[in-house]
Amino acid sequence: MSPDPRYAPLFQPLRIGPVTAPNRFWQVPHCSGMGNQHPATLAAMRGIKAEGGWGVVNSEYCSIHPTSDDTPAPYASLWDDGDTANMAAMAEAVHSHGALAGVELWHGGGRSANVLSRAAGLGPESILSDTAPWQNQRMDRQDIKDLRDWHRAAALRAKAADFDVVYVYAAHTYLLAQFLDPALNARADDHGRDFDARTRLIRDLLADTRDAVGDRAAIAIRIEVTDEDGRGAEARAEFLGQIAPLVDVFDVTIPDYGVEMGPSRFVKEAALETHVGHIRKATGKPVVSVGRFTSPDTMLSQLRRGILDFIGAARPSIADPFLPAKIRDGRLDDIRECIGCNICYAHDGLGAPIRCTQNPTMGEEWRQGWHPDRVPALIGQADPVLIIGAGPAGLEAAVTLGQRGIPVVLAEAGEPGGRVTREARLPGLSEWGRVIDWRLTQIGKLSQVTLYPGSAMTADDIRETGLAHVMIATGSLWRADGRGRSNPGGVASFSGPNILTPDEVLNGARPMQGPVVIFDDEGYHIAAGLADLLAAEGHAVTYVSPAGTVAEWTTYTVEQTRLQARLIERGVSLKLGQIVTALAPDSATLACAYTGRETSIPCVTLIPVTSREPQDALYNALQNKGLATLRRIGDARAPGLIAHAIHDAHGAARAHLTAQPPPRRERPIIASS
Amino acid sequence: MSPDPRYAPLFQPLRIGPVTAPNRFWQVPHCSGMGNQHPATLAAMRGIKAEGGWGVVNSEYCSIHPTSDDTPAPYASLWDDGDTANMAAMAEAVHSHGALAGVELWHGGGRSANVLSRAAGLGPESILSDTAPWQNQRMDRQDIKDLRDWHRAAALRAKAADFDVVYVYAAHTYLLAQFLDPALNARADDHGRDFDARTRLIRDLLADTRDAVGDRAAIAIRIEVTDEDGRGAEARAEFLGQIAPLVDVFDVTIPDYGVEMGPSRFVKEAALETHVGHIRKATGKPVVSVGRFTSPDTMLSQLRRGILDFIGAARPSIADPFLPAKIRDGRLDDIRECIGCNICYAHDGLGAPIRCTQNPTMGEEWRQGWHPDRVPALIGQADPVLIIGAGPAGLEAAVTLGQRGIPVVLAEAGEPGGRVTREARLPGLSEWGRVIDWRLTQIGKLSQVTLYPGSAMTADDIRETGLAHVMIATGSLWRADGRGRSNPGGVASFSGPNILTPDEVLNGARPMQGPVVIFDDEGYHIAAGLADLLAAEGHAVTYVSPAGTVAEWTTYTVEQTRLQARLIERGVSLKLGQIVTALAPDSATLACAYTGRETSIPCVTLIPVTSREPQDALYNALQNKGLATLRRIGDARAPGLIAHAIHDAHGAARAHLTAQPPPRRERPIIASS
Repeated sequence: MSPDPRYAPLFQPLRIGPVTAPNRFWQVPHCSGMGNQHPATLAAMRGIKAEGGWGVVNSEYCSIHPTSDDTPAPYASLWDDGDTANMAAMAEAVHSHGALAGVELWHGGGRSANVLSRAAGLGPESILSDTAPWQNQRMDRQDIKDLRDWHRAAALRAKAADFDVVYVYAAHTYLLAQFLDPALNARADDHGRDFDARTRLIRDLLADTRDAVGDRAAIAIRIEVTDEDGRGAEARAEFLGQIAPLVDVFDVTIPDYGVEMGPSRFVKEAALETHVGHIRKATGKPVVSVGRFTSPDTMLSQLRRGILDFIGAARPSIADPFLPAKIRDGRLDDIRECIGCNICYAHDGLGAPIRCTQNPTMGEEWRQGWHPDRVPALIGQADPVLIIGAGPAGLEAAVTLGQRGIPVVLAEAGEPGGRVTREARLPGLSEWGRVIDWRLTQIGKLSQVTLYPGSAMTADDIRETGLAHVMIATGSLWRADGRGRSNPGGVASFSGPNILTPDEVLNGARPMQGPVVIFDDEGYHIAAGLADLLAAEGHAVTYVSPAGTVAEWTTYTVEQTRLQARLIERGVSLKLGQIVTALAPDSATLACAYTGRETSIPCVTLIPVTSREPQDALYNALQNKGLATLRRIGDARAPGLIAHAIHDAHGAARAHLTAQPPPRRERPIIASS
Repeated sequence: MSPDPRYAPLFQPLRIGPVTAPNRFWQVPHCSGMGNQHPATLAAMRGIKAEGGWGVVNSEYCSIHPTSDDTPAPYASLWDDGDTANMAAMAEAVHSHGALAGVELWHGGGRSANVLSRAAGLGPESILSDTAPWQNQRMDRQDIKDLRDWHRAAALRAKAADFDVVYVYAAHTYLLAQFLDPALNARADDHGRDFDARTRLIRDLLADTRDAVGDRAAIAIRIEVTDEDGRGAEARAEFLGQIAPLVDVFDVTIPDYGVEMGPSRFVKEAALETHVGHIRKATGKPVVSVGRFTSPDTMLSQLRRGILDFIGAARPSIADPFLPAKIRDGRLDDIRECIGCNICYAHDGLGAPIRCTQNPTMGEEWRQGWHPDRVPALIGQADPVLIIGAGPAGLEAAVTLGQRGIPVVLAEAGEPGGRVTREARLPGLSEWGRVIDWRLTQIGKLSQVTLYPGSAMTADDIRETGLAHVMIATGSLWRADGRGRSNPGGVASFSGPNILTPDEVLNGARPMQGPVVIFDDEGYHIAAGLADLLAAEGHAVTYVSPAGTVAEWTTYTVEQTRLQARLIERGVSLKLGQIVTALAPDSATLACAYTGRETSIPCVTLIPVTSREPQDALYNALQNKGLATLRRIGDARAPGLIAHAIHDAHGAARAHLTAQPPPRRERPIIASS
């Protein structure tokens, strides 16, 4: 397709220091869950970004020394020659598509718990690590000197690995931000006594890095535009102006990570603009910042109005590594927009390679050889596949099979969308609907895929079609009987008209007059979202959970604190550390999760959010009935995240009639003696 | 030294199936935090156990297939030839010391979240994983057949790797236990309809494994002696008797992991005896079980009374890999007894190799070449080292330097023990004192180490000694000013007589009459332990924490649920999700951690447990004063776990005048192209 001239400014090269970025798409440093334990996975993933048109592709945070070790969270490192080789593979993959490769040199200071390296942490003061009950060593003069030496050595390794951009990382409460923060740096010496002293280490590291690698690489700094406490934007801008001669690119953000990494439930596109708009003028240097940009017009506007020089992106580049190429080629309706669910970041927190709800190939580039914009065509003529259910799994399977050139009949009992349509009705989640929108758009372009809404099918109906290949994508439904972690066998009294399931509520049913109890025995967002929804409608809601916090698992998706605040502000009564063990017509019995002590609370309607039942009756009925292939996919197979459904369906569509090798693994192997 | 004939029964060989265990010391399968990502670390650690006299040394749980992936918790695996090579290295290391090597084949069923493999989990029903909001696939007939094939293939890989014992793992709520449990297995088919059906898979896997590898390896089963709900011990014993012909060794435990893995705070030695004593008779086969055995007399008694045939141990073998050798050689007072702090297991939970409070070499066998029973002597004559402070770090440094042949002067202002003495006064923690006892015993054997209690020293005093090598081990003290995660800059009103620090309380000070508030801004056990202590003494205690649970971090040490239950039962008022932000003479101000909303509660005494201040004044005063070497070690360097202090001091003592190479690393390295 031909380039759209409207967006030409996004494709103007820009010189930064000794290198030139080929365009304005800057994949900012972002966690990958790969780091130094999965270097081939990492290199392939970053390479795909470059292939998809990102002009600058950066690493995740890259530790300069064992005193900065975030295990179990994965991180890159440049501690030794082995690391240099691994990071060089990433730079090479990025270069092979004409992009610049950047690396974010990182020291966590007192935040890092160093559980793998077992080194004492370092920082301006001795503070507790973020996650563990131990503290770092207060740096003395020699420690500061060592730190500078390590940083310089890591920069030189980055140069040896052929990186084009080297970051000094002064944000996100890591070491340099600790030195900057007067609450964390009460030192009386020349690294703490005043603002000048607190910024000394940043200035020294910028100068050191420029001296070491500035002939080859642009020097970037990642830094917040205000103090940690939200004051001092003017003073900070003045400081950024002062250091501008040492800096080729400013990558700026704000102290509130819940906004920078904001889930779409709470934070929309371009949320940082009002905070960072003055930095370009204050520094006179190119500026990059993020905003979960997926709209080409928003991007263009950022450039046109002089807010940014580079469109920074992490999540949008994960949801669609080919976003720049699609803008360039005028394929705007092919852009797979980030939905802001933060499942990517959640998996970094779980110590595993990131994945994406929208993009099933994320993290699979090396492991399974999956490409985000191409799927191998089936060789030869293919019989059609009948897919039952047009939720996320059914739609993804239909798109992928269709792209492989395989005819698809997609039968849906109601309207397409399934659980995604339901869940997108929760407060703030409308963007999640993009999962469905993108796939319906693609199906509209695939002549070999036919969608039949309003087409419920029985096993007999299916057999009568004569189609020999069937995929069952009939999803799952929330159980009404209370089965789950707390009550594995269910609760006999969870029955009758005072039980509502989450699916019923999301389909429009509402509680009767009187107290509503929502029992969250699962921990993700559904129960909290329902409490938010119903409390906003005026219901008296009690949220009960055996966990100590609301929607405990959403800590991983950076939603937990705001969800809990939201429920408190809505007046929802929180009963934490409690389990619902029985239901009577006007009350529910709670048991303390610790002592078993029982209490009773008023309850006219109970919504149990405990676990889901796969809707696999059709699958069971069709087994051993002579079909050539029969697969259950998505929630009908294993109720999971939307990301699971998409990934499972995508894999099933790739594997249809084409055997796939087992996924590759990265781990050390001992040579036999 | 000569063997002690009293303990000869512990050193009788015993035949199990086709192999013979050289003695009765059985290192049961236990988590190592190493698994398939750190195979060399793992092999060396297991090899050291064999060297130390454990007659049978087992792997941790070893996954048979990618559908069983516990990431981020480390686990071993036998999925492919690479895994076979890595596990063969472990078996070889164990064999090289004449011990048998065992492997515990494992499938997690619905418990595993499979975040690395991204495979759908499997189980008798579709249930939520332990830790994540997604569910497994309900196994159909083909899935069960596949499972048996995978298990057999893994057993054959174990044979190829030369293992002598192969486990079928039917405990700990993993796959086979899920099939056993009627609450989790309501299947109507021949794998669920009754007891016989629920046990079918166990019987099939035992038969399959025996068929595949029984000619070479003993078949062990790890299984609970009662149903999950605590009933049915008789029925279970009858079942174990039925399967006995398929089993060579029964490794038995109970469903309550909080007792099996019981911290010493709540559970003492040999706690399982009353539960497992009947299994030997019921099965007629050798039986192994655990009980945190460190006393040779208790071990002997277990054998003599026919409770056990093998003394099972995990933690005691971590605290002292040479425990059997020391019994054999009559070195009983050299046994480094496990203190039951569960810091080993905590680090597995943190996704890192295990470590040990008592044994600083645990996990360092390959990485740093550390041996638990030998330290290299310094070559040549050495000047004495002055150590200031005889807490855990000072004592460990003194022992290790002394064992290297270096003279040590150990000066302690009060009595030896430091923080360990204080913390061991918390309810249930008396065994923690073993950290001090063992080191004092060792010092008593080292003529070159002299301990001077009651010897406070100033910088001038130190200089006047003329000693050129100084280690500062002066520990840390809890801050009174509230500095910590919630209030980084401290709280101005935290001053005056209504503040008590944890150290003051543990040294005997007690609150004034009136309400006591304990502010836990740290999350490990001190605040909860103080609440327990003071409530038991009759004080009215309120426990405040920004976390949602009491002593949140003790989830890792298997103490959290019992600590929270304890406080509730003691009548402690829990204010969770709250921060103490100010103190007045009769009240404390709390702020909601989510909304910032303030409330006030009565408070006459506030005990802030927020963070600690390293006591490094002496270190600072001695810098650049012409000493040949000056080191701060332990909490004076970086306030941490007792395990940190011991490890840091041990490393410092090894590094004294002898340069150490950087620790080795295990991770994949990409060959340059």
